[in-house]
Amino acid sequence: MRILVLGGDGYLGWPTALHLSRRGHDVGIVDNCVRRNYDHEMGVDSLVPIETLHKRVRLWQEVSGLTIETYVGDLTDAAFVDEVFERFEPEAVVHFAEQRSAPYSMIDRRHAVYTQVNNVAGTLNLLYAIAEHDPSIHLVKLGTMGEYGTPNIDIEEGFIEITHKGRTDVLPYPKQPGSFYHLSKVHDSHNMAFACRIWGLRATDLNQGVVYGQATDETTLHPGLATRFDYDGVFGTVLNRFCVQAVIGHPLTVYGKGGQTRGMLDIRDTLACVELALLNPAEEGEFRVFNQFTESFSVQQMAEMVADAYPGRTEIAHVEDPRVEKEEHYYRAAHTKLLDLGLVPHLLDGTTLRSILAIADTHRDRVDPEAIRATVEWRRTASRLRTASPGLRA
Amino acid sequence: MRILVLGGDGYLGWPTALHLSRRGHDVGIVDNCVRRNYDHEMGVDSLVPIETLHKRVRLWQEVSGLTIETYVGDLTDAAFVDEVFERFEPEAVVHFAEQRSAPYSMIDRRHAVYTQVNNVAGTLNLLYAIAEHDPSIHLVKLGTMGEYGTPNIDIEEGFIEITHKGRTDVLPYPKQPGSFYHLSKVHDSHNMAFACRIWGLRATDLNQGVVYGQATDETTLHPGLATRFDYDGVFGTVLNRFCVQAVIGHPLTVYGKGGQTRGMLDIRDTLACVELALLNPAEEGEFRVFNQFTESFSVQQMAEMVADAYPGRTEIAHVEDPRVEKEEHYYRAAHTKLLDLGLVPHLLDGTTLRSILAIADTHRDRVDPEAIRATVEWRRTASRLRTASPGLRA
Repeated sequence: MRILVLGGDGYLGWPTALHLSRRGHDVGIVDNCVRRNYDHEMGVDSLVPIETLHKRVRLWQEVSGLTIETYVGDLTDAAFVDEVFERFEPEAVVHFAEQRSAPYSMIDRRHAVYTQVNNVAGTLNLLYAIAEHDPSIHLVKLGTMGEYGTPNIDIEEGFIEITHKGRTDVLPYPKQPGSFYHLSKVHDSHNMAFACRIWGLRATDLNQGVVYGQATDETTLHPGLATRFDYDGVFGTVLNRFCVQAVIGHPLTVYGKGGQTRGMLDIRDTLACVELALLNPAEEGEFRVFNQFTESFSVQQMAEMVADAYPGRTEIAHVEDPRVEKEEHYYRAAHTKLLDLGLVPHLLDGTTLRSILAIADTHRDRVDPEAIRATVEWRRTASRLRTASPGLRA
Repeated sequence: MRILVLGGDGYLGWPTALHLSRRGHDVGIVDNCVRRNYDHEMGVDSLVPIETLHKRVRLWQEVSGLTIETYVGDLTDAAFVDEVFERFEPEAVVHFAEQRSAPYSMIDRRHAVYTQVNNVAGTLNLLYAIAEHDPSIHLVKLGTMGEYGTPNIDIEEGFIEITHKGRTDVLPYPKQPGSFYHLSKVHDSHNMAFACRIWGLRATDLNQGVVYGQATDETTLHPGLATRFDYDGVFGTVLNRFCVQAVIGHPLTVYGKGGQTRGMLDIRDTLACVELALLNPAEEGEFRVFNQFTESFSVQQMAEMVADAYPGRTEIAHVEDPRVEKEEHYYRAAHTKLLDLGLVPHLLDGTTLRSILAIADTHRDRVDPEAIRATVEWRRTASRLRTASPGLRA
């Protein structure tokens, strides 16, 4: 299959591209490399060193004998998107190419508007490109479990049957996202559902949980094929961040009570889920939603698991929650559709945790402890970061 | 009350500004006057001639002795929005300032992206401005009944109680909007709900039906105070368009079967509803939704009513529906909250219809019959308009 991986230079896009390449697909990577720029803006860096896109694509060819085409440009540039589609002629598109950090979107007005315009306009351009070039191209789009928020009823996969005043319909599941980033994904989902309806496009929305881990079968073939490992307060996700805190002897910082429960998955399962979606495409005109996670844990549980897995004594510290979210809530979310397609999950156990802790240990000298702190506060319209951003209000 | 009317140069914004001014409020108008530019782009014009913004504000002062401040600029320009808030210091904001035509948003990629970026980013800037200047400012935002689509269950006012697998919660009503314009309003609604939650803002989302009529108590005080009357295929709404078709002897063009049912309201009720929302503001942190319409009619019913009200024989023609929508469907939508606040509706009767027909009759020489035709097709990614737009694909 000819597959374009949009955002193929990022944390998940890169290993997904390698995985699909090794599985025999013709892969093209589209990326504007802006993720690397966010690091420069924030004054942080991936824990694990990463090569430039062009260097690692060349390295992949040396290691595997397989070629990945690269297109550097921006999805908000419609002419660029058209050109990529004309040159690559994809049969499927995997779309990771969005600003994906909730705290980044909450820094201030400028970052909120940037996040929504970038994500929404980029995805709109993509929908038009598919409709105009070939409506049969299957779009596999990364959404987030965070689109649902934490309702007091079970979360279903994208749709819910509602009986109301004696009548019944199956409707889009109501969304209560918790950041301007999460909102951008909700906007995308609505736009995609509509595009499928009017133009007969086929799309799969993968509402992904929080990913942990960094090593995959392909990235470990050579150190230069590594993907990023983020532990900072803006782009680092909870479990990876806890592992870095453990190895540098920093208390594991749990926001608030730690009762926030989230769907989680191993990075290797992200790759497997994306491939399963590609191999079992949506029907013509179908907009389908898969909840892409394998287990749910509370933040407190995750901190305890990491503390248990790391030798010696690791403290857990409860810090004020910078977000506006429920610190204790009901959480039960369906996630059977990918299992039905054949997903065999890597569950979170001591072995997995120790392997992530080992990666963190190897690179502990690169850790900047100052970068870990949560500096973006939801209740403020502008958070002061240690790196000055023009236009910030105190 | 010091009230900013955003989009105060438009069809509804202008008469709302006059109405609030005459009711004793201090009114400021914010507008980028882009609505007038859409006319230039489409090669159409308001049926009723309208004066420039500055001229009609001066005229209002001569007629009423009341002053309306004007700020010409764009909500997507955050520095401009900040400056307006600093200079005017509003206590409430009425927000009409969005691209409001479904067909315009469906012309092609460029118009879709423009509509969503303009509406979403403008509203985001506004939310930030309110939060930063004074979170107690009440935001009254125009949404649309079209956000809901046509579900097979009753439509409620913004929220619905759902019992699912033995648990119950009140959640945002699921949305199935039918154009990139309607989608932009859904995006706005989600963003506003979130801003109320994290910053304690107070907001009222008026999910308005389709407005008919053009004359209000204030606009009729002088011909130069008239507001626009759109009858063209892109910006004209159904009932006003039928009235123009009737007076020029054109068949009333019903899209498809005409079973499409929509909530409708008189322009004078728009003004009354906005004022009721302003006088009864949302609580701190509250995001509330009012369904702003007074009666529901199918398109076929409306055509028959107009045909009956106009002397002589008026034909009804069924043309292919350019939209992707259900031509027959269940439709029952709650609209009690504004009635509870005291709204006394102007219902659609022969007198009202004849008054709209009389306006159309007066200006019949200005009608361009070519402008009436629906030229934007939902199933195409690019519709060919009679005025060439650069970047259009056939």
